[in-house]
Amino acid sequence: MLMSSVAAPALAEGPTLSEEAFESSKQLYFEQCAGCHGVLRLGATGKNLEPFSKVTAADGTVTETGTVKLGQERLERIIALGTEGGMNNFDGILTEQEIKDMATYIMMEPPQPPEMSLAQMKKTRKVYVEEADYPTEPLHGRNWENFFVVIERDVGKVAIIDGDTKEVLVHIPTGYAVHVIKASEHHKLNEPENPGRFWYTMGRDGKMTKIDLWQTPDKMLVSEVTVAYDARDVAVSGDGKYIIGGAYWPPHFVISDAVTMEPLKVVSTRGVNTEGDYVEEARVAAIYTTPNEPTWLVAVKELGQMWQVDYSDIDNLRIDKIDTARFLHDGFFDPTGRYFQIAANASNQMVVVDSEERKLEAIIDTPALPHPGPGANWNDPNCGPVAGTTHLGIGTVTVWGNDPEGHPDNAWKVCYETETDGPGLFIRTHPNSKYVWADQTLHPEPEIQQSVQVISKETNEIAKTIQVTEDEGSVAVHFEFNADGSEVWVSKWNRSDSKEANGEIVIYDAETLEEKARIKGLFAPTGKFNVYNRSNHVT
Amino acid sequence: MLMSSVAAPALAEGPTLSEEAFESSKQLYFEQCAGCHGVLRLGATGKNLEPFSKVTAADGTVTETGTVKLGQERLERIIALGTEGGMNNFDGILTEQEIKDMATYIMMEPPQPPEMSLAQMKKTRKVYVEEADYPTEPLHGRNWENFFVVIERDVGKVAIIDGDTKEVLVHIPTGYAVHVIKASEHHKLNEPENPGRFWYTMGRDGKMTKIDLWQTPDKMLVSEVTVAYDARDVAVSGDGKYIIGGAYWPPHFVISDAVTMEPLKVVSTRGVNTEGDYVEEARVAAIYTTPNEPTWLVAVKELGQMWQVDYSDIDNLRIDKIDTARFLHDGFFDPTGRYFQIAANASNQMVVVDSEERKLEAIIDTPALPHPGPGANWNDPNCGPVAGTTHLGIGTVTVWGNDPEGHPDNAWKVCYETETDGPGLFIRTHPNSKYVWADQTLHPEPEIQQSVQVISKETNEIAKTIQVTEDEGSVAVHFEFNADGSEVWVSKWNRSDSKEANGEIVIYDAETLEEKARIKGLFAPTGKFNVYNRSNHVT
Repeated sequence: MLMSSVAAPALAEGPTLSEEAFESSKQLYFEQCAGCHGVLRLGATGKNLEPFSKVTAADGTVTETGTVKLGQERLERIIALGTEGGMNNFDGILTEQEIKDMATYIMMEPPQPPEMSLAQMKKTRKVYVEEADYPTEPLHGRNWENFFVVIERDVGKVAIIDGDTKEVLVHIPTGYAVHVIKASEHHKLNEPENPGRFWYTMGRDGKMTKIDLWQTPDKMLVSEVTVAYDARDVAVSGDGKYIIGGAYWPPHFVISDAVTMEPLKVVSTRGVNTEGDYVEEARVAAIYTTPNEPTWLVAVKELGQMWQVDYSDIDNLRIDKIDTARFLHDGFFDPTGRYFQIAANASNQMVVVDSEERKLEAIIDTPALPHPGPGANWNDPNCGPVAGTTHLGIGTVTVWGNDPEGHPDNAWKVCYETETDGPGLFIRTHPNSKYVWADQTLHPEPEIQQSVQVISKETNEIAKTIQVTEDEGSVAVHFEFNADGSEVWVSKWNRSDSKEANGEIVIYDAETLEEKARIKGLFAPTGKFNVYNRSNHVT
Repeated sequence: MLMSSVAAPALAEGPTLSEEAFESSKQLYFEQCAGCHGVLRLGATGKNLEPFSKVTAADGTVTETGTVKLGQERLERIIALGTEGGMNNFDGILTEQEIKDMATYIMMEPPQPPEMSLAQMKKTRKVYVEEADYPTEPLHGRNWENFFVVIERDVGKVAIIDGDTKEVLVHIPTGYAVHVIKASEHHKLNEPENPGRFWYTMGRDGKMTKIDLWQTPDKMLVSEVTVAYDARDVAVSGDGKYIIGGAYWPPHFVISDAVTMEPLKVVSTRGVNTEGDYVEEARVAAIYTTPNEPTWLVAVKELGQMWQVDYSDIDNLRIDKIDTARFLHDGFFDPTGRYFQIAANASNQMVVVDSEERKLEAIIDTPALPHPGPGANWNDPNCGPVAGTTHLGIGTVTVWGNDPEGHPDNAWKVCYETETDGPGLFIRTHPNSKYVWADQTLHPEPEIQQSVQVISKETNEIAKTIQVTEDEGSVAVHFEFNADGSEVWVSKWNRSDSKEANGEIVIYDAETLEEKARIKGLFAPTGKFNVYNRSNHVT
């Protein structure tokens, strides 16, 4: 027999929900669960959540498992309280009824999510300001290169803040829960016009918006388009002509015209992982513009592959599929712009890609679950040029050499590790600063969640611990320096009440480490992007 | 609502088959129907065969259709008698009961075909002769460079025939219904050892076998491996180190070690077509080794894309996805080895790829359904270097200029068309010959099916029509010249009785066009591959 079919288990007497409860659970699952467990529920960062599944042990023994076996009560408890294995607790986030319904929902067969064609995407495009009406110089007389673009996550907006005056100029509606925002950047080969002027957001709902910082604040939103149902990242081509959006579902990336936002080309990322197994839900975790090559780096999370996508000729699209490690998450370039350093968090490794040769350069073993966010590069007195990462799994900053030309003996080897008080999400520094900042957002204790730690580049030790907030339910997260490196901006974010304007950005003097100002009235501020730093590769 | 699910229509009262009839229909569907209609039954060359489907007209009107609507009787009639639209008649091929069951089977939901992992493939590998035991010189004292490797399609074998003596040396068991066989070839950049010595077959059942022509005939089969459930083509890397197998299901290609046959890497071809729609069943129609570049050209049929796959570094795999036209089928290189000319038969076009620049060079409009098989290049007195194709849809040979450097005005333009008596599958010539040969296998009348036509390169007109056979049920198909171009070998194949050894190869003098010899006792001989011609790019 050449082919055998995979039979779906029958659910004749299975759990049921009203159509309304099913639809709202499906929506909640998408918003809260799919990121880790996948829309097909096959698992990735999170566990497999199919109604019936099998686990094969090392000795070949097969155990029948799945959500149906766990049952309603146990599933409710896990959703409400979380697990030691890393599952978040949702008791403060979902209502009791929502938790009940979700437990039932995940015992039912996952609905087959739909595809999205290029024709569908094109129909979603909206233009608020025509290209012909774009201003030829900034209309507001402000120092726009020190603007901060700030994600207000749970309300689907970004705030534009004047970094000189600390004024919030506007809250711009975007897609839901924007993850990252990208601007046109300076490029070695093909410089775009006015780097840093145009910013592009990608919502978790796949909606991309284009923001023009030369406009008056009320007109900064110039156009939008939707390219997926579930998405995470966006990047601009070096020449500023294209944008690329990367999706979780459908698993694909989409190249669009950066001026008009018209989608031009869709490329599926479904594929075979480095182990040789087909992965339907092979998702685009992140996308980066290479500063020296006419390419993007697309991190295909579940495949363990970095796809270097060349935008020089999109009708004859060159892709170099670089085998690395799983699950790829987020990363940053070294100061030369040649080497890209990205976390493969399930493998406890940092992967280094050589964007010039378009191949794997090195893999560095690290402690549990590295997560560098936008990362940090600096000079170490012993190892020379280094880079560092925080970890989701442990309170440690890991630092490695990243100058294979000048310091080959230290390159891609751990230089040192600095213990912090708790696991965190973000690390950041600036060439003018003596310090490296690390957050500790994932530690369970409020006091530590609310504090950040400042590491001395000279001694490699904690120079200061700063409690950013003492407000109940609030955490400290994410850093961004201002354009000249004299200030550090930290977010204060109220987890359980994040749809109110009770979030703040706390600004510190980068030299004295003293608090300097607070910007209030923000909705769950998370990622912050300084125009000058981001468009000039200041990492 | 961000996501909506695609509900499968319920079949509570639907058609049923016994488990045995279901399994044998599934197997027959795979062998006889899936090639055109797809394992998912979404259609490609053939129509959509889902139980319930929808057709959207140009004005947006949606009509409900599908096999259930057609019903048992009408489906039986279509299967038995074929249609004007191009569906073959199966009344001589399937029994009455098989046709009945098939009509029922295609009204049932298609079973989800399984994936195949790299680990599964590795387990299928069998070694009959260890590498260490490979001979260092030919063991049989024959002129192996004039051997012919001949596909005996319906019995799952290839015959090795001595072209000098016309002796059939051996019938080697292979996969089912081998489509194409490939050898290591001379290469501009990285010459393999002993081009033409090793031959690789790909069966429709995904089994690949390796043949060593230096062995004594009983030991020529040296190893095998299975890389798919349904497959069509195989190619060897220029350096002879890798082989690549291309599959229909799962839709993927697999790179293996050419020496050991160990599978190394799987790449999915599921993707988004040139219209911007996702295609799950995006199949590899054919694969070719580029004579001048370290690459293969992979024709991804339903995507309308040629993927140029670089084998220089398979861990950092470069693929250039060249947008062309649908549905890609088969093709051949120009004499320089730079340009690849392939049929996009649903578009009635020949597509030309520039393998040096790795991009689309040109698209040539042609009459209905071009099908060149291994193709033909020659010099035309008016147009200079030209190439030609037969057509599945019409009795015509279309000839175009293919020398953009020397004859830019004629390049990629139709030079002339020669009318033949009927649509055919194959065209062939040789640099030493004054003639171009075309078959007419697809014409409904026996006399024309059984005849081939010989076109003069000088006059562009039919110089002779040769009736290869008059045997009832037999057709004439496919040509191959011998090494020095003095003979033309034509297959005579009995369609309805193809599992008996009643097939023949009829040999003609290439100069006088007179019959010279008949090799009898062959099982459905179809494709024939002369060692010297195929490993020296004599097309």
